[in-house]
Amino acid sequence: MTTSLPNTQPADPVDPRLAECSATPDVRPALFSPAEYDRRLQAVRRTMDHQGLGALVVTDPANIFYLTGYDAWSFYTPQMLFVPDEGDMLLFLREMDANGAFRTSWLPPDQIVGYPERYVHRPHLHPFDWVAFALRRRGRIAPAARGCVGLEMDSHFFSPKGYRSLVNALPEWTLVDSFELVNWARAVKSDAEIQYMRTAARVTTAAMQAAIDAIEPGAPQNRVAAQIARAQAEGVGDAWGDFPAIVPMLPTGASADTPHLTWSDRVLREGDAVVVELAGAHRRYHVPLARTVMLGPPSDELLRLEAAVAAGLQAVLDTVAEGVPVQELASAWNWSLAEHGLEKHSRLGYSIGIGYPPDWGERTISIRTEDESVLAENMTFHVICGMWMTGYGYEVSESVRVTRTGVETFTSFPRALIRK
Amino acid sequence: MTTSLPNTQPADPVDPRLAECSATPDVRPALFSPAEYDRRLQAVRRTMDHQGLGALVVTDPANIFYLTGYDAWSFYTPQMLFVPDEGDMLLFLREMDANGAFRTSWLPPDQIVGYPERYVHRPHLHPFDWVAFALRRRGRIAPAARGCVGLEMDSHFFSPKGYRSLVNALPEWTLVDSFELVNWARAVKSDAEIQYMRTAARVTTAAMQAAIDAIEPGAPQNRVAAQIARAQAEGVGDAWGDFPAIVPMLPTGASADTPHLTWSDRVLREGDAVVVELAGAHRRYHVPLARTVMLGPPSDELLRLEAAVAAGLQAVLDTVAEGVPVQELASAWNWSLAEHGLEKHSRLGYSIGIGYPPDWGERTISIRTEDESVLAENMTFHVICGMWMTGYGYEVSESVRVTRTGVETFTSFPRALIRK
Repeated sequence: MTTSLPNTQPADPVDPRLAECSATPDVRPALFSPAEYDRRLQAVRRTMDHQGLGALVVTDPANIFYLTGYDAWSFYTPQMLFVPDEGDMLLFLREMDANGAFRTSWLPPDQIVGYPERYVHRPHLHPFDWVAFALRRRGRIAPAARGCVGLEMDSHFFSPKGYRSLVNALPEWTLVDSFELVNWARAVKSDAEIQYMRTAARVTTAAMQAAIDAIEPGAPQNRVAAQIARAQAEGVGDAWGDFPAIVPMLPTGASADTPHLTWSDRVLREGDAVVVELAGAHRRYHVPLARTVMLGPPSDELLRLEAAVAAGLQAVLDTVAEGVPVQELASAWNWSLAEHGLEKHSRLGYSIGIGYPPDWGERTISIRTEDESVLAENMTFHVICGMWMTGYGYEVSESVRVTRTGVETFTSFPRALIRK
Repeated sequence: MTTSLPNTQPADPVDPRLAECSATPDVRPALFSPAEYDRRLQAVRRTMDHQGLGALVVTDPANIFYLTGYDAWSFYTPQMLFVPDEGDMLLFLREMDANGAFRTSWLPPDQIVGYPERYVHRPHLHPFDWVAFALRRRGRIAPAARGCVGLEMDSHFFSPKGYRSLVNALPEWTLVDSFELVNWARAVKSDAEIQYMRTAARVTTAAMQAAIDAIEPGAPQNRVAAQIARAQAEGVGDAWGDFPAIVPMLPTGASADTPHLTWSDRVLREGDAVVVELAGAHRRYHVPLARTVMLGPPSDELLRLEAAVAAGLQAVLDTVAEGVPVQELASAWNWSLAEHGLEKHSRLGYSIGIGYPPDWGERTISIRTEDESVLAENMTFHVICGMWMTGYGYEVSESVRVTRTGVETFTSFPRALIRK
């Protein structure tokens, strides 16, 4: 398999315009080499074979991006990348989005199929009714059924209605959960991916600095969010900012005891601790970062928390290296925190990389004692020490790359409570 | 049913911290009156009764917000609002987010239940396994099974895995698709909701102006996006900006033939037509708007498109009034466009209001000839005349409110091609 440049080959009958586009500009260059896309597909197919899958149905936009480069805000209507164990992949998406796949993915037009607009948001139809028939019409049903067909049963944009469409329309298929198969293939990054993450980290640093500059008594939260959002898109020089998968979080004052509240016009006051959690993104690769900004003198309990978290985070970073079980990171954290009389119930971090809303995590490795993964070089994590206490909270995080002997942090922001 | 202020009643055993929070600040005031929340629930229950449902399982974050006020970026892990035909609703969400529900929803603590962290992102568990047992333990299974139990089978954040958890754990329940039941209840806005949308429209106007100011030859797309994002959060005075459900879209030049591409660092040039599609949001209510900005003299074909779209949009707005079938709007558009020798395959617009990523549409009424809805006062739509031609495109839209005799547009931006 090689990546193909747009050509003049006739496209699927559904969207004849594709063939006419071949001479137009504004086709994005591929983000990765043909060899890298080929390696990704081969790795996915090896796991498919291992799990007894004759085909895989991919619906997670991050996984579709990983395998094809397709990148657009089109995932609010159903999309499917059909990955057979051999032969061409097929990308099914809404008719009006087929051109977008032509412009951003490496797939040749005959592997991009638009489903008709009349299947969008209809109570008694689902686009996958049409897609199932399109697969049948192309003779792609039987070959795929050499084994089971894997489905991403917990993908955000694959609904039970879409699932039942496939169950009803493809009775020959034995459907099984693929268990984040492609997400797992994403866990170890290539050098090219690491480069994109280092570029994203420059956006992250600029956005965190914009946050710290904007946080002051009298500023409403939404004005702080505005400066972060500006910096996240603006980036720095050639490190241009892509949209982050999650908006900036600014848990403030007493409400910093809960992590996922978004901003309002709540005015910052002297005495507030403001938690800032954000990511810089570049070409869909994310580097998240959290810091806590204190307006005025911190309370004794916040200072104790700062010291405990600093020690715990350092203990975790000191533990990271290729070959170390992930649960040892969690243990290092738990032991260190226990020495300060504290504990944290929620996971300490998660694997990161490509992100689409609503999440920049990969939904695979979580840093917690139940996780059985082992660290490998070029795995990347957001290690987030979020302590949500009663009526206050504190967060410090680092995004890191596992190296053969230790750890690389993507950013170099001071790791303490930031006093203003 | 009345809304309850936070009290000192013991919360669910899972999250004892809730009870301690009662005296803390940073609890958001309810966005709507207790009477309005009550009317919403009663309307939903009337439809449930009509559709033979003894209970409804709500997973769409916009629907949860509509019924409870709960607002946080927590929908990347499973959430469920259980709505029985009588008795208290129960909101299930991740343990760390229970405090957020306490801080933003009107629900009393005993109706907020956090599921344990160990159910998050585990391959062989799903939070709804736990939720199903929690419902059983509370004796909420049998009463709900007086009829069928409705599920939002096409909700973005309800996965097939979650669906199968409920199927397996609640065999007493007869599950049926609720067909966007709550979404339909949202179609006609209250006066209070219209006021939030008018406030959102002020954010929209500021964001569109920021876009037009930033679009110039030599500016990279991401710098334009940065200025839009800043204005979207900053807002204007008390019209503060909430995060929009979709990032700004900037289809540019030849790639304006496809609607959903996001920005890159592509530099704008003399001769580019730049489509801007964005929304202002205020307290989760959205007012979208699209315009096209031309750098330099427009081509003859773009001018013809401008004239055709202007006439078509005017024909649609002249048709809007309470009692008019939605398909007449589509017909008015189609006839007008046909007079210019054009046609548009995709829908002309959709119902709007509350939005969470990835969509600000309500997924109910679409303006197209297949739609059988009839316009009612205080329905609100994004009428989007998006023409994606071969190698270029043009968009103009209006967000509108249906009145008894006609139409109110939320913004008053000049409706022509904007020349710079």
